[in-house]
Amino acid sequence: MRTKITDLFQIRHPVVLAPMGGVSGGALAAAVTSAGGLGLIGCGYGDPRFGYGSPEWIAEQFKLAGNHRVGAGFITWSLARRPDLLDVILDRGADPVFLSFGDPTAFIPKIRAAGRQLILQVTSLAEAKQAKTLGADVIVAQGTEAGGHGTTRRSLFSLLPAVVDAVAPTPVLAAGAISDGRGLAAALMLGADGVLLGTRFFATPEALGGAALKRRIVDASGDDTLRTRIFDIVRGVDWPEAYTGRAVANAFLATWHGREAELAGQLDEEARRYEAARQAGDVDTAVLFAGEGVDLIHDCEPAAAIISRIVEDAEGLVSNRRMTA
Amino acid sequence: MRTKITDLFQIRHPVVLAPMGGVSGGALAAAVTSAGGLGLIGCGYGDPRFGYGSPEWIAEQFKLAGNHRVGAGFITWSLARRPDLLDVILDRGADPVFLSFGDPTAFIPKIRAAGRQLILQVTSLAEAKQAKTLGADVIVAQGTEAGGHGTTRRSLFSLLPAVVDAVAPTPVLAAGAISDGRGLAAALMLGADGVLLGTRFFATPEALGGAALKRRIVDASGDDTLRTRIFDIVRGVDWPEAYTGRAVANAFLATWHGREAELAGQLDEEARRYEAARQAGDVDTAVLFAGEGVDLIHDCEPAAAIISRIVEDAEGLVSNRRMTA
Repeated sequence: MRTKITDLFQIRHPVVLAPMGGVSGGALAAAVTSAGGLGLIGCGYGDPRFGYGSPEWIAEQFKLAGNHRVGAGFITWSLARRPDLLDVILDRGADPVFLSFGDPTAFIPKIRAAGRQLILQVTSLAEAKQAKTLGADVIVAQGTEAGGHGTTRRSLFSLLPAVVDAVAPTPVLAAGAISDGRGLAAALMLGADGVLLGTRFFATPEALGGAALKRRIVDASGDDTLRTRIFDIVRGVDWPEAYTGRAVANAFLATWHGREAELAGQLDEEARRYEAARQAGDVDTAVLFAGEGVDLIHDCEPAAAIISRIVEDAEGLVSNRRMTA
Repeated sequence: MRTKITDLFQIRHPVVLAPMGGVSGGALAAAVTSAGGLGLIGCGYGDPRFGYGSPEWIAEQFKLAGNHRVGAGFITWSLARRPDLLDVILDRGADPVFLSFGDPTAFIPKIRAAGRQLILQVTSLAEAKQAKTLGADVIVAQGTEAGGHGTTRRSLFSLLPAVVDAVAPTPVLAAGAISDGRGLAAALMLGADGVLLGTRFFATPEALGGAALKRRIVDASGDDTLRTRIFDIVRGVDWPEAYTGRAVANAFLATWHGREAELAGQLDEEARRYEAARQAGDVDTAVLFAGEGVDLIHDCEPAAAIISRIVEDAEGLVSNRRMTA
């Protein structure tokens, strides 16, 4: 399956790992690249409180990725507070660099000077046009059905072809709830050159994150996911107003969603309880960021198996053959 | 392009007109059926205040549809207040009957007794499973990107394959922001048997609604659409809590969205002003319900031209040929 994305990155399959903070470490990124896709390490907030994202952690993940070509992703507004982290990943050879959620302008010269490719993720048509103006090599159109952070501005089905039309000939990746070969085939029909998979790759042995969370991805329905701020509030992460995180509903969410001000008012106590529960592996309290595509995830399986089945099924659909699964 | 939908309804193309209140009258429904799709008359609230939906209006629309086979659609919670309207459409030969938004159970025996086919529209996986249990002949999976009323529960891209898996072998139509052949092709890849088009058919000469509104559909971006309650509040329509309406932003929306309680507090005055502005054709005040797919709508053109281009483009994509447009 050859597309502008496979040509640009010199990969076999148009499947890219979303750089999920705390999930997409060096092992998963390497597994995706090794299977013919493109792995991206998720550097998150660059805040050691979360147990990932420090310079040492980043260096360790690149070591785990070994000789496989991997890129790295940042939350742009957060990188602006720790701009030194960009040097850390560039020094480790990260290529491409993936930036989401915020104004990337200030970081682009350094990425270009290092000769690295640039992927910009957008959540609206207006942002896509800006990303093209900034000279992105690849633009990711992320719909509101995606897991983790994003906006409620647009859903993937119509955002994707609108972005493709607006930024042509820049290659476009589709992001948001894509979990199987049907999703890859549909994304190609809508004009994408490939897909960015997040939640689907969370449910792999190679992903960071506990087994209980991965099991919950397999068990959950997309109906159970919700965009919320409560996990950001309790974790003390000050996301800009426009962004919420799509998470699987649990007891903590049922208690606090819609009572954000109240939660903020008793934050000291609740943050302590939350962190203790999280460390104890309590999935009724700890956040599980996941997209609406969890309905289509029935197993926790190696990244390579996922990629080969998705590509095979999509090729079958596109050429009118039957699906294998 | 033969699917379960074309077989079931004995139509040439798997394209169904959404029964949009105040938009999908007899002329548009007949035009869609005549072009090889399936037209549905939108009976809305059955409330003469809106200038459509009364028994006389319904009878007039069926007369306009002439000998073409057309169905009709109701808002289920609203039909429960005017159950006599079901008899009106059944007497006029409506087939299929399309019900959305609410519990359809009470209406099904009469529809079955009349020998008519039943389409149930759903906005979540849980609702889809209920619709299958109720014996729907066709289930419509509507994503939150759709124009007009619906929920924020699910986006189409992942809802659709999840519904297909859950209700098989019941045929599924995809609804929400589908505007061109790419959308039809993608819907088929995701497992749908056809598409339900709303906003795309609004921008036709055959649709009810003023030229200024149709022009705005052509000009607007999906970024400009928003789910809101303010137009329901000012029009005095008491939609259940779960439902909002996706509309194109205008001055009235900019003024009131987020200030719902305040609007409700001065409703008498604002409702009078709104209605006067609406009657004067003031598109900065009057609601324009439309989906995120407006980015892909570049012309107001006859329904037949839309259908033939969408089908031709989708066939080209599915068989790896180039698009014509």
